[in-house]
Amino acid sequence: MRTPIVIVNFKLYEISIARALDISKSIEQVSRKLGVEVALAVPATMIREISSNVSLPIYAQHVDDDQLGAHTGSITPELIKEAGARGTLLNHSERRIRLDQVANVIERLSSLGMDSVLCVDRRELVAPAALMGPTAVLVEPPELIGSGRSVSKVRPEIVSESVKAVKVNQSVRLIVGAGISTYEDVIKAMELGADGVGAASAVMKSNSPASVVEEFAKAIRDRRLAP
Amino acid sequence: MRTPIVIVNFKLYEISIARALDISKSIEQVSRKLGVEVALAVPATMIREISSNVSLPIYAQHVDDDQLGAHTGSITPELIKEAGARGTLLNHSERRIRLDQVANVIERLSSLGMDSVLCVDRRELVAPAALMGPTAVLVEPPELIGSGRSVSKVRPEIVSESVKAVKVNQSVRLIVGAGISTYEDVIKAMELGADGVGAASAVMKSNSPASVVEEFAKAIRDRRLAP
Amino acid sequence: MRTPIVIVNFKLYEISIARALDISKSIEQVSRKLGVEVALAVPATMIREISSNVSLPIYAQHVDDDQLGAHTGSITPELIKEAGARGTLLNHSERRIRLDQVANVIERLSSLGMDSVLCVDRRELVAPAALMGPTAVLVEPPELIGSGRSVSKVRPEIVSESVKAVKVNQSVRLIVGAGISTYEDVIKAMELGADGVGAASAVMKSNSPASVVEEFAKAIRDRRLAP
Amino acid sequence: MRTPIVIVNFKLYEISIARALDISKSIEQVSRKLGVEVALAVPATMIREISSNVSLPIYAQHVDDDQLGAHTGSITPELIKEAGARGTLLNHSERRIRLDQVANVIERLSSLGMDSVLCVDRRELVAPAALMGPTAVLVEPPELIGSGRSVSKVRPEIVSESVKAVKVNQSVRLIVGAGISTYEDVIKAMELGADGVGAASAVMKSNSPASVVEEFAKAIRDRRLAP
Repeated sequence: MRTPIVIVNFKLYEISIARALDISKSIEQVSRKLGVEVALAVPATMIREISSNVSLPIYAQHVDDDQLGAHTGSITPELIKEAGARGTLLNHSERRIRLDQVANVIERLSSLGMDSVLCVDRRELVAPAALMGPTAVLVEPPELIGSGRSVSKVRPEIVSESVKAVKVNQSVRLIVGAGISTYEDVIKAMELGADGVGAASAVMKSNSPASVVEEFAKAIRDRRLAP
Repeated sequence: MRTPIVIVNFKLYEISIARALDISKSIEQVSRKLGVEVALAVPATMIREISSNVSLPIYAQHVDDDQLGAHTGSITPELIKEAGARGTLLNHSERRIRLDQVANVIERLSSLGMDSVLCVDRRELVAPAALMGPTAVLVEPPELIGSGRSVSKVRPEIVSESVKAVKVNQSVRLIVGAGISTYEDVIKAMELGADGVGAASAVMKSNSPASVVEEFAKAIRDRRLAP
Repeated sequence: MRTPIVIVNFKLYEISIARALDISKSIEQVSRKLGVEVALAVPATMIREISSNVSLPIYAQHVDDDQLGAHTGSITPELIKEAGARGTLLNHSERRIRLDQVANVIERLSSLGMDSVLCVDRRELVAPAALMGPTAVLVEPPELIGSGRSVSKVRPEIVSESVKAVKVNQSVRLIVGAGISTYEDVIKAMELGADGVGAASAVMKSNSPASVVEEFAKAIRDRRLAP
Repeated sequence: MRTPIVIVNFKLYEISIARALDISKSIEQVSRKLGVEVALAVPATMIREISSNVSLPIYAQHVDDDQLGAHTGSITPELIKEAGARGTLLNHSERRIRLDQVANVIERLSSLGMDSVLCVDRRELVAPAALMGPTAVLVEPPELIGSGRSVSKVRPEIVSESVKAVKVNQSVRLIVGAGISTYEDVIKAMELGADGVGAASAVMKSNSPASVVEEFAKAIRDRRLAP
């Protein structure tokens, strides 16, 4: 995972593959123009099409802890890799999973050379999560998700303490999300030490998703250029 | 749903989209040659690619009962429809769901004009399942799944009683599965009154999946031609 | 199950066993005085104590579909029977279970001679539920639960259609719940053909739970006496 | 939690409260005689009766992460405390729970002054688990559960590495389980640094559960007396 990074979670906001592709391509241009990494977490049915047409890292939104073979209705790490995903979100607040499955899936993703972005809802879980060895921990206070009030402004201590907590495992990145909507939200998150930001509704419910991502990417670029 | 039908559940037996496409195209030829309907239930990541290249009904293996919008990691009826699916398996023994979700999802699929194949594990559930209004009920005794011993031969009474039970809702088809592996297994299922058969391992673990489906399709054709 | 019946779901409204016993005993007096059956669905930790001290039918609020032996943390039909329960609620809107588990647990309860009260959220599920063979189907539109607006007054057609639907299995009773709070709510439910009513918050959040139950019981008695 | 400790998980091996009480009382005598702490994890329906009659720490086998009030079928920390439990097992291999629920429930138990014994299936999860702040981490390789082959003899490195890993949180105890059946199994576990052992089938499937526990307790006493 190249950082700093913006992760855009498409959730189920856009079901048309044509429009999802348009959004993805516009974001790709922003990413190139500003030299900022942007990853897209898309529905499983869209992974192949988007990853084939867009040169951004494409993530799944969830994977199941089932083995290949006689399993029906599961999406596994191998399956999303084959479809072109570079990794997946894991344990999102809208798709929590069991502790043992978190560990199993991180291990499988790792052995496949894939990224795992393990979501947690509180700073107290950042260190335990980091010790499980994901690529990144994404901390998102659920009460701010979709609220338009950003965790970095409203609850800066969550970011700064998470940044400290993640150091228990030096190889793990710390990403923050929930309410991230503006250039300032991202600047603030980067100042507090985050390796990236996650966003969903602020991007996907906008009339111009790429413009929102552009604000985020500019913040990252400006912060990088700051002396 | 055109019946009699063969439903092939790919499960997670084949993760390469190239090989999954090859298998699908070979089965498509069999279906055309013999004039027998064959539906393929494939992983969510493969629905778009296979449905775009193969003119057979493509089914998902599972859908979630979540609404569009702020949901992460879900596969909904709308999403699989957009990807090209004609319907989905539901409540497979490897992916059981809650009673209320069964009802919700059948209703959503129906309002989208899609097929729902509701799986149950025993004849006693065929009538309740049929009353929930799916396109078809697929009865599969779990102990015979993947066993090579077919429900139609080993437990014919399950088939005949299910055929009777499904009549509680005249618009619902009755499909049988579990251990269906040979021409004779299918003949027997059709004689007992089934509207189709489901198969997975017998097809997908074969060196020549299309040849196995061809045996099944021949059985259906021969039975149809029988005086 | 003797009907007409009032089922009081204690939920987690009262954690003190002393107060739960007091409430149970007061309700027992009401039941005796008016000759109306009242069953209490109590937390698993309270079943033994309440059933030992109160001669009303005591129900669990949920049971798991696990076998005896090497299972940890489960509450099974055998366990609640041994503790003194006469049956259990099943698939309550706050504890939905899988379709196959509904069937398994009803079968186990039945073979133990215990009552099963299968909850569903809509009239469309009453017939399928009845065909699974529970002692009673309890239909509760979730949007009215705890609302104080009773299903029998606000949505009488749900009651009357459920009464019709349950007849698919003559041995199954039809109970209605959600918002049942007053004498009139119960009268109306009985007029519409229900075999009983379920209540929770209207009773348990009252300063005098037994007085609320007394209103319900009077309604049942008066309706019974009506020419 | 007084350590070293033996935790006996009754699972669902014994459903008669009379026999469960007999076993509990016999184990109580062993505990007193040898001055070794023994805790019993019993079904929720038995907590009140056993804790009222036996002066050993009584644990639940699982608790749910639901709030008091309008919840049906849940067993919460408050409920088991009121019934007399001193704490609970959590996330047992036969009852895994979600990562966020682990954190929530540990916090609730802690604020109620109760013990939480967080079960994990591998040494790699010991440190993350310890950082979540339970009273103890119980590591049990599932493949050895009920096998009669003890983790301390067959996989001593799991014990020794878990003992090291738990030190990430100095206030957390390390207990080992799976296959613990004999005096020697316990001696070995204590030598490797464990603060206690967990057992289930070896005790509960024995004709004389208290005799088995006595062997375990002797091992703990002898090890304590060792120079």
